[in-house]
Amino acid sequence: MAFKPLHDRVVVRRVESDEKTAGGLIIPDSAKEKPSEAIVVSVGEGARKDSGELIAPSVAAGDKVLFGKWSGTEITVDGEDLLIMKESDILGVIA
Amino acid sequence: MAFKPLHDRVVVRRVESDEKTAGGLIIPDSAKEKPSEAIVVSVGEGARKDSGELIAPSVAAGDKVLFGKWSGTEITVDGEDLLIMKESDILGVIA
Amino acid sequence: MAFKPLHDRVVVRRVESDEKTAGGLIIPDSAKEKPSEAIVVSVGEGARKDSGELIAPSVAAGDKVLFGKWSGTEITVDGEDLLIMKESDILGVIA
Amino acid sequence: MAFKPLHDRVVVRRVESDEKTAGGLIIPDSAKEKPSEAIVVSVGEGARKDSGELIAPSVAAGDKVLFGKWSGTEITVDGEDLLIMKESDILGVIA
Amino acid sequence: MAFKPLHDRVVVRRVESDEKTAGGLIIPDSAKEKPSEAIVVSVGEGARKDSGELIAPSVAAGDKVLFGKWSGTEITVDGEDLLIMKESDILGVIA
Amino acid sequence: MAFKPLHDRVVVRRVESDEKTAGGLIIPDSAKEKPSEAIVVSVGEGARKDSGELIAPSVAAGDKVLFGKWSGTEITVDGEDLLIMKESDILGVIA
Amino acid sequence: MAFKPLHDRVVVRRVESDEKTAGGLIIPDSAKEKPSEAIVVSVGEGARKDSGELIAPSVAAGDKVLFGKWSGTEITVDGEDLLIMKESDILGVIA
Repeated sequence: MAFKPLHDRVVVRRVESDEKTAGGLIIPDSAKEKPSEAIVVSVGEGARKDSGELIAPSVAAGDKVLFGKWSGTEITVDGEDLLIMKESDILGVIA
Repeated sequence: MAFKPLHDRVVVRRVESDEKTAGGLIIPDSAKEKPSEAIVVSVGEGARKDSGELIAPSVAAGDKVLFGKWSGTEITVDGEDLLIMKESDILGVIA
Repeated sequence: MAFKPLHDRVVVRRVESDEKTAGGLIIPDSAKEKPSEAIVVSVGEGARKDSGELIAPSVAAGDKVLFGKWSGTEITVDGEDLLIMKESDILGVIA
Repeated sequence: MAFKPLHDRVVVRRVESDEKTAGGLIIPDSAKEKPSEAIVVSVGEGARKDSGELIAPSVAAGDKVLFGKWSGTEITVDGEDLLIMKESDILGVIA
Repeated sequence: MAFKPLHDRVVVRRVESDEKTAGGLIIPDSAKEKPSEAIVVSVGEGARKDSGELIAPSVAAGDKVLFGKWSGTEITVDGEDLLIMKESDILGVIA
Repeated sequence: MAFKPLHDRVVVRRVESDEKTAGGLIIPDSAKEKPSEAIVVSVGEGARKDSGELIAPSVAAGDKVLFGKWSGTEITVDGEDLLIMKESDILGVIA
Repeated sequence: MAFKPLHDRVVVRRVESDEKTAGGLIIPDSAKEKPSEAIVVSVGEGARKDSGELIAPSVAAGDKVLFGKWSGTEITVDGEDLLIMKESDILGVIA
């Protein structure tokens, strides 16, 4: 099953950070509120200018990106938990 | 009776997910707040650009789509419960 | 007496739904919050684009339409209770 | 003394509806919240498009109009109580 | 000392209405909430269109205008109390 | 050290008004809420039109201006306390 | 690892001000709410005009800038704590 986001939406797969410290302690949530990393899974065809033309997206499938911790909506595609968000919620690309 | 949504509105028919678990337990509502699936029933002629021209819709009748759980307004057409929403409330198309 | 709505406003006459059940019970208001049907009575000349040109209305007098239950303002023309609303409050046309 | 409203403002004179019933009872305010009738007294030269050009007003002095009960600001010109409002507060013209 | 308002701002001098009644009673504030009269003292060069061009102001120094009671900010120029406001806060010109 | 404000921002140096009365009394803050005077220190290159072109600023370094008491953010440049604000927060120029 | 901010975002490295006074006292937070200094680390390709064209950024990597104390989101790149913000949150450039 494929899922194609509409307009300027982007589907990403979270990169789980290692939530244990070296000594094996689990870090509580409140200690991890920085932006999260994710891999772009699929990208819509882009938003439209006032003139109605498409604006090409700035990210592509496979890009490793940073996004705000509270951005996006969780969706389930083929049993996998993914996130769908606006391209503008993506802060930048990790090269 | 046919119903034609105006502008950039879209009429969809919910795809009811199976609300029982394998063992027959009914999952309470609070456990199901992810976006819902629906089939597009009919589509308006599209929103208008600033210049007044129409923007062609990005979904068509028959598309299987994902939309936010709280989007849309319930309507009854020919005794069937449907949902009418803005095209922008549709997250993407399941191919 | 004729009444001509300005701009993108539309005047409609509600189609009263039958408020009694088969057995003659009166359905209380809270059970009827779905969009309502109405017949379009008269239509303004349309909104204006940024360029100042008119956008032709998408409904015409005589159309049977569905509108949100809470849309519009009640007016009385020639002793008849009608509703005036923006064209954008009309969800679609029943053909 | 003449008063010329600026931009897309319109000055109107309320048409007092007969506030007594046939039997002479005074109808309390809460029973009269429908839009009110008024005669247009004077009209500004119109709003401006984005391009800076004027949009000709849709009403003219002498028109009988319907406006929302709570629209406009009371002004006194030559001792007469009038109302000044935006043209967009006028619902339509009674012909 | 001269004061030149920027953009679409206008400096006005209030015309004090006679606050006593014929019999010499002082009218309390709550009885006077209608728009106030003022004389335009100086006018900015005008707002700018989207295209960046200036829109010529609709009032000129010396015009007698009506403005909303709560509009504007008090300023002191050469020891005189004046009001500075947006041109859009001016309701109209008394000719 | 020089500081160049970006876009349509303006850096100003407050002109301290004499906070004592003739008799030497210190006027409490609540008695001084009118707009304040300042000298423009430096000016950004200007805001951009929709078309992306720059709009030339309406004030220049050295201008004596009036600005709203609560406008701007305090900054320290070379140990001197200055204010940075949007050009639109400047009410006008004292000539 | 390189991080490329999207659109009109800018990544900066805070310049820590010396938080001790000459006598060695630590200044509490509430005494330091003025805008902060930072060095620009990387810059997105710029925002887009209505027409869809890019607007070149006004700052470049290496610029020393002043930004509002509460602007931006903390990110960690290669173990270093940086800030990502909109170019419009940058008040100006220190030359």
